[in-house]
Amino acid sequence: MMAKEIKGIAASEGIGIAPAYRLVAPDLHYTKRRIENPMVEYKRFMQAVDASLADLRRLKERAAGRLAPDALGIFDAHAAILSDPELLKQVKQQLDQQVCAEEAVDTVTARFAQTLAQLTDPYLQERAGDVRDVAKRLLSHLLGRRLPDIGAISQPVVLVAHEVTPSDTSQMDTRFIRGIVTDLGGRTSHAAIMARTLGIPAVVGTDHVTRATRDGQLVVVDGLQGTVVVEPSAVQVDRFTARAQELAQERTEWRQRVNAPSVSKDGQQFEISANIGNPNDVAAAVQQGADGVGLFRSEFLYMGSDHLPTEDEQYQAYRQALVGMHGRPVVVRTLDIGGDKPLPYLPLPREMNPFLGYRAIRICLKHPEIFKTQLRALIRASAHGPLAIMFPMIGTIAELRAAKEIFNECRADLQTVQPGLGDDIKLGMMIEVPLAAINADRFAQEVDFFSIGTNDLIQYNFAADRGNDEVAYLYQPLNPAFLGLVKHVIDAGHRHDTKVAMCGEMAGDSTALPLLLGMGLDEYSMSASSILRTRTLMSKLDTNECAQLADEAINRCVTHEEVRALVEDRLGAIN
Amino acid sequence: MMAKEIKGIAASEGIGIAPAYRLVAPDLHYTKRRIENPMVEYKRFMQAVDASLADLRRLKERAAGRLAPDALGIFDAHAAILSDPELLKQVKQQLDQQVCAEEAVDTVTARFAQTLAQLTDPYLQERAGDVRDVAKRLLSHLLGRRLPDIGAISQPVVLVAHEVTPSDTSQMDTRFIRGIVTDLGGRTSHAAIMARTLGIPAVVGTDHVTRATRDGQLVVVDGLQGTVVVEPSAVQVDRFTARAQELAQERTEWRQRVNAPSVSKDGQQFEISANIGNPNDVAAAVQQGADGVGLFRSEFLYMGSDHLPTEDEQYQAYRQALVGMHGRPVVVRTLDIGGDKPLPYLPLPREMNPFLGYRAIRICLKHPEIFKTQLRALIRASAHGPLAIMFPMIGTIAELRAAKEIFNECRADLQTVQPGLGDDIKLGMMIEVPLAAINADRFAQEVDFFSIGTNDLIQYNFAADRGNDEVAYLYQPLNPAFLGLVKHVIDAGHRHDTKVAMCGEMAGDSTALPLLLGMGLDEYSMSASSILRTRTLMSKLDTNECAQLADEAINRCVTHEEVRALVEDRLGAIN
Repeated sequence: MMAKEIKGIAASEGIGIAPAYRLVAPDLHYTKRRIENPMVEYKRFMQAVDASLADLRRLKERAAGRLAPDALGIFDAHAAILSDPELLKQVKQQLDQQVCAEEAVDTVTARFAQTLAQLTDPYLQERAGDVRDVAKRLLSHLLGRRLPDIGAISQPVVLVAHEVTPSDTSQMDTRFIRGIVTDLGGRTSHAAIMARTLGIPAVVGTDHVTRATRDGQLVVVDGLQGTVVVEPSAVQVDRFTARAQELAQERTEWRQRVNAPSVSKDGQQFEISANIGNPNDVAAAVQQGADGVGLFRSEFLYMGSDHLPTEDEQYQAYRQALVGMHGRPVVVRTLDIGGDKPLPYLPLPREMNPFLGYRAIRICLKHPEIFKTQLRALIRASAHGPLAIMFPMIGTIAELRAAKEIFNECRADLQTVQPGLGDDIKLGMMIEVPLAAINADRFAQEVDFFSIGTNDLIQYNFAADRGNDEVAYLYQPLNPAFLGLVKHVIDAGHRHDTKVAMCGEMAGDSTALPLLLGMGLDEYSMSASSILRTRTLMSKLDTNECAQLADEAINRCVTHEEVRALVEDRLGAIN
Repeated sequence: MMAKEIKGIAASEGIGIAPAYRLVAPDLHYTKRRIENPMVEYKRFMQAVDASLADLRRLKERAAGRLAPDALGIFDAHAAILSDPELLKQVKQQLDQQVCAEEAVDTVTARFAQTLAQLTDPYLQERAGDVRDVAKRLLSHLLGRRLPDIGAISQPVVLVAHEVTPSDTSQMDTRFIRGIVTDLGGRTSHAAIMARTLGIPAVVGTDHVTRATRDGQLVVVDGLQGTVVVEPSAVQVDRFTARAQELAQERTEWRQRVNAPSVSKDGQQFEISANIGNPNDVAAAVQQGADGVGLFRSEFLYMGSDHLPTEDEQYQAYRQALVGMHGRPVVVRTLDIGGDKPLPYLPLPREMNPFLGYRAIRICLKHPEIFKTQLRALIRASAHGPLAIMFPMIGTIAELRAAKEIFNECRADLQTVQPGLGDDIKLGMMIEVPLAAINADRFAQEVDFFSIGTNDLIQYNFAADRGNDEVAYLYQPLNPAFLGLVKHVIDAGHRHDTKVAMCGEMAGDSTALPLLLGMGLDEYSMSASSILRTRTLMSKLDTNECAQLADEAINRCVTHEEVRALVEDRLGAIN
């Protein structure tokens, strides 16, 4: 068979080579046939039942650490259906009439599901869905077509999926994931961000990679070029292996800067810090020489749990991050749920446009009890290192003041017991709502720092969902007008001695770096895996030249392509 | 029974008094019972069949003018199900077993639907839905619970609904709608905008009006105070009737300005024009003294049709509008579909965030054939009056240039036959994407006029869906930072001799008027019903005082409440 090459969007640097693991629902169609020997067919059916029961036991064991006892009940419910004497009896009756096992399972489970669905008790109605799930599992075993089970991966693989959801990510053992390839998504999709965070090579937006691969086929993921090769030739494998080694070489050079300061060629000092999702990510941040944590996405504490994390649980997590950073600053973003990040135990209304909906600070201000638990945990943790807190999705001064008031209330309360606690905490806000960027001068007078969240700021300013392929062309961090807005925010911050950071994807983008440096951005927060590359490039850039470049990009260029060409031309001269 | 008062959002001025017509799916639950006489029950069942068939004939007749012959087939399909001998036979069998007609219909149609749903032919599968629809209709007649049928309203009513969709609006005869009350929605919901356009009193966002009323109960809608009174006392009816007369009085005063120019107290001339949805709205615009049409929402031509409107169909519509306006200018916005406005015959992808999705100019630039048909029709129509064309949802200079290029191509093409055609057309763009507002200085150099679409500009700038009740508090036209952005757009326009109009709801808001006048906005485009009120208020305002007021609002106020208080204080001194 010839190697197939598939183009996509380069989403996370590096080269991965491993067999494909398709995270795709299998085709469970079958051909109805008349069977000769009902006894043999019944044995086949019972093997599928046993295999299904074994699946369920394994799934339950694995979930035991993550889910509450209540939630584990689902596995028992499925097992109970598989052991239902009436169901087994009816299947047997079908087989006796020379119906094949697939059809028998289909017919009998459909009948069961329908009976359940017609009952008035909502609990029993929901069981109809369980019966259908069990039917799928049985069919998959009968047909020898595996149901994908991301949690079961225990060998190196390249994950091939339509898309990767946060729920998939939470189940997988990332040590075995050598690469990720998806049909959908762009550079800011969940899969892409997660891959960069974990340093896994990834290509997204291939459109059809799930159709072009079969399980177990050798796949090369080239996350630099955005290429996927299915069943590469021996020559190709050699070439990619060599490229992977070159890359490793380059990384070795970068690694020499792990303890170096983040300085430009002309000696200006900046900060390059890490975006992290939980306290365990701190180790990678330190290992990659982060000057601090510029964004601790606290929502992962909430999403990885089956209940609202308590003050103590949160305190432990924040303290762990601060202690792990050994005195380097940690910026925690308060809860940013809603939008594309739901919480199972906090039901939120279904929304027509979740990105323009009830999320982040909007939820916290309406649920001060949730907000206070987090703020108290943060204030307590601040005893263990330099902590900063920032509020997401602030659009109006009134919202910011309301958030600060709740913070002050919590601190005053804790200080009655421990005077001075939390006095050194810096308070900041994300700049991601367009009006906040526009109004930066006034906001700068009310906070210690800004952190520009470019992913959201871009999608709102262009009114284009970054997850929507049809309007992906409007994700333009290098658009001159958008750069002008970023500069406006930086200048406004500096007019009022407010530090300006950036924690969106743009902060780690090599083409954007000279422009941001030229505008005087103070802190660059990014995936840990991008820190050393960025620090290396920064050391080759002169801030005065960069300021001229930024000025040219904003004032002389009209399109983002023109800006890209301008910067790449200049970068070419440097390297 | 005591009168009930329900508070909501005042959405359209005026007072309406009429019996309630609830646009709510009826409760079709019934109690199963054993019947005594199957023959009597069968007669009852056949009466429901006949009544259902009569419904279908009436619905088909009414739809005949609006739908294509193909689409009318649905009514015949439903009638055929009602005449199916097998279905009738099975129902009869059930009745013979002393099952009541409701249960018999339920059981038999469920069986039919299930059989159809299990077939592999997708056409037949869809018929399952038809069977369920027919079952609902039969049950509604058996239970004497009317299925709402907005098209059948032929007596004065107050429409009481959960929400009102564009599809509802397209079916109703607005002459009979004395008022509209909804559970959901805010001032910029479809129901609210439609009501203002048609001059129907409306209160939206009541939360529970559908639960608090029964069909036929007398209802008062006070669209000034945002109040609904169910079963008013005689005293209340008198009082509201008197208020309605006062209002009529005030309107009579306003009407004296129907031929007056739109001038401020100090003699500055502006334009107050009408937003229209189709050429028939022109009559109301002229009647209300509009200086022109500031927004012709061309998408209604597409949404009211069962096919892409042809060049000739569009030409006729645009010509009709231009001729009807007797030489006053007409601004047509090119197709703005997508988002919350789908087209049945142009399938678009389902989107997670339609307001940040594939819509308006984004669709037109990817489907130049659709765009060209419209532009050609417009250019041809321009022979009949002063026409301006504006492009919606422009975010980048590249998009604007691409749109202009297609326009120029169409015009050049038409000019080979008719030299000079379309040379006087003014080209403009909506300012509704935040980046376009920010980048107004550069855009102003490329167009003849701006039209600020405040509904979208606000929702994107605050990153808050205006249809989402949870974040409705972020719909803040009077926010000082937002006002600053509007002023930036107006100033940028004027620096480059670009006329600046506004066509969002804000343009017709009495509190916003002094601020917009103070910023020098050139044209105010609004629901026809607001024109004379606005012209009257404008005549009492001094532009210099207003400029000071705007300056104070932008630079001294922090919250939108402060701005509102400031302006209302000043307005109080005037009236």
